[in-house]
Amino acid sequence: MILLNGKSTSEALKNELKEKVDQRRAAGKKIPHLAAVLVGNDGASLTYVGSKVRSCEKIGFQSTLIHLEETISEMELLQQIDQLNQDESLDGYIVQLPLPKHINEEKILLAIDPNKDVDGFHPSNFGRMALEMDAFIPATPFGIIEMLERYQIETSGKHCVVVGRSHIVGRPISILMSQKGTAGNATVTLAHSRTKDLKALTLQADIIVMALGIPEFLKADMVKEGVVVIDVGITRVTDTSHPKGYVIRGDVDFDGVAAKASAITPVPGGVGPMTIAMLLKNTLLACERRD
Amino acid sequence: MILLNGKSTSEALKNELKEKVDQRRAAGKKIPHLAAVLVGNDGASLTYVGSKVRSCEKIGFQSTLIHLEETISEMELLQQIDQLNQDESLDGYIVQLPLPKHINEEKILLAIDPNKDVDGFHPSNFGRMALEMDAFIPATPFGIIEMLERYQIETSGKHCVVVGRSHIVGRPISILMSQKGTAGNATVTLAHSRTKDLKALTLQADIIVMALGIPEFLKADMVKEGVVVIDVGITRVTDTSHPKGYVIRGDVDFDGVAAKASAITPVPGGVGPMTIAMLLKNTLLACERRD
Repeated sequence: MILLNGKSTSEALKNELKEKVDQRRAAGKKIPHLAAVLVGNDGASLTYVGSKVRSCEKIGFQSTLIHLEETISEMELLQQIDQLNQDESLDGYIVQLPLPKHINEEKILLAIDPNKDVDGFHPSNFGRMALEMDAFIPATPFGIIEMLERYQIETSGKHCVVVGRSHIVGRPISILMSQKGTAGNATVTLAHSRTKDLKALTLQADIIVMALGIPEFLKADMVKEGVVVIDVGITRVTDTSHPKGYVIRGDVDFDGVAAKASAITPVPGGVGPMTIAMLLKNTLLACERRD
Repeated sequence: MILLNGKSTSEALKNELKEKVDQRRAAGKKIPHLAAVLVGNDGASLTYVGSKVRSCEKIGFQSTLIHLEETISEMELLQQIDQLNQDESLDGYIVQLPLPKHINEEKILLAIDPNKDVDGFHPSNFGRMALEMDAFIPATPFGIIEMLERYQIETSGKHCVVVGRSHIVGRPISILMSQKGTAGNATVTLAHSRTKDLKALTLQADIIVMALGIPEFLKADMVKEGVVVIDVGITRVTDTSHPKGYVIRGDVDFDGVAAKASAITPVPGGVGPMTIAMLLKNTLLACERRD
């Protein structure tokens, strides 16, 4: 069984990115610059954004954190977005979700310049991706593709079952894996909350991508021998025996499923670390586009 | 067995559109105006565009045919596109494909104002559709959804196998049918040229959408009893016994499959007629958006 190690893979990728930054610096080229917009003080969002900024620093990117008050109006945030669009020093930026309820997320998303949309959430990028044009690919599915490629997991002609149809994971990975190209050409089934007899589907799957958000949902009796399992789930589960009071669980009953799998991502340390690395990769791509 | 009659369904839809146009006229509102750009003299393209223009006239739309020389340069065509984007009298327009080889289709496509892109081929529209925002949906998949709705075919929780991953049919219908909404919520498998053991998949399907372009590919022994079959294929097959020298065949061996199906589209007279009707519907939507 191969453990698809997102921690070491993302470190390798970040080292490659760092080398490219060093080369750019030596050549007198622009250093990639990522900004992150954070509204309010949600704990998880603070953690994610902090981690993104630290990763930028580690590989030599320039980074800017724009931390705004919870009470900012939609209009003020749109003005901020407009400034970021016009800021020539900036290659890309992200707006950390979720936003406070009084702000329309779709409106904010649509205001982001697609050329700086390194999260790949703007419909213009999403459409370009789906139509196989050059595009920023959302970081999580991009990270899954990167990991499948680096571990040379054969996908062509394989039956891949994706569980979950979210805009940021299930939908884009189902598109990417059924397109032509490496880590593509799979026959992809997209399953979701309305799917009947999911077990009958997952039992047929050569590859399963779990992006449901229900801890330990996928059990050993739902998969066949030799399956490849990608677990995108990250849920905090209360555990009083643990110092933090919780543990992180994926969508997969790891021990049971790992015993039958030919390859599997752990949680934590699987898809998660890849996501930040791919955001950095998108930022470098955005910077290179402007050379 | 229900014959999913695209001819009568599209006539009903066009009558509804005509009524709306009459109401708009009576209210002193703008009449929908569609333009079609045709480059060169390809026989099939002439037929398609002619049919689109005639359909416009029948329901009271204004229509404009812009017929350009085969030898037009890419730059000149881009200038034409720019004029159409700026033409305030126009609600929407289409550029008939294929274009001559010296013209980059992607470049032309990207130049179309997404607000006038009633074919729904611009990545901005495609992305909006995939992200469940308000969008122009490409006419063929939109026509399939419309027909499934009008015949009240249950799709929620059903397993739908889409065969073919083209940007204009297979990909968008696989997205639409797996989204929330009427004619949605299906578990969708997207199969294509690299799929292994297609028969094992189609035998499981409650609904099959064939968009492969291989005449009479789907045989009776590949489907289960009660299947719903949507045939998007339109291929001219040589037939010297026929006055025209050819007959039109779909991707489905109709007689054999119809005997097992609970509902099926014929070819011709199925999905084909729906496509033009949906282009007209998109044009009305474009006009209404500007009210």
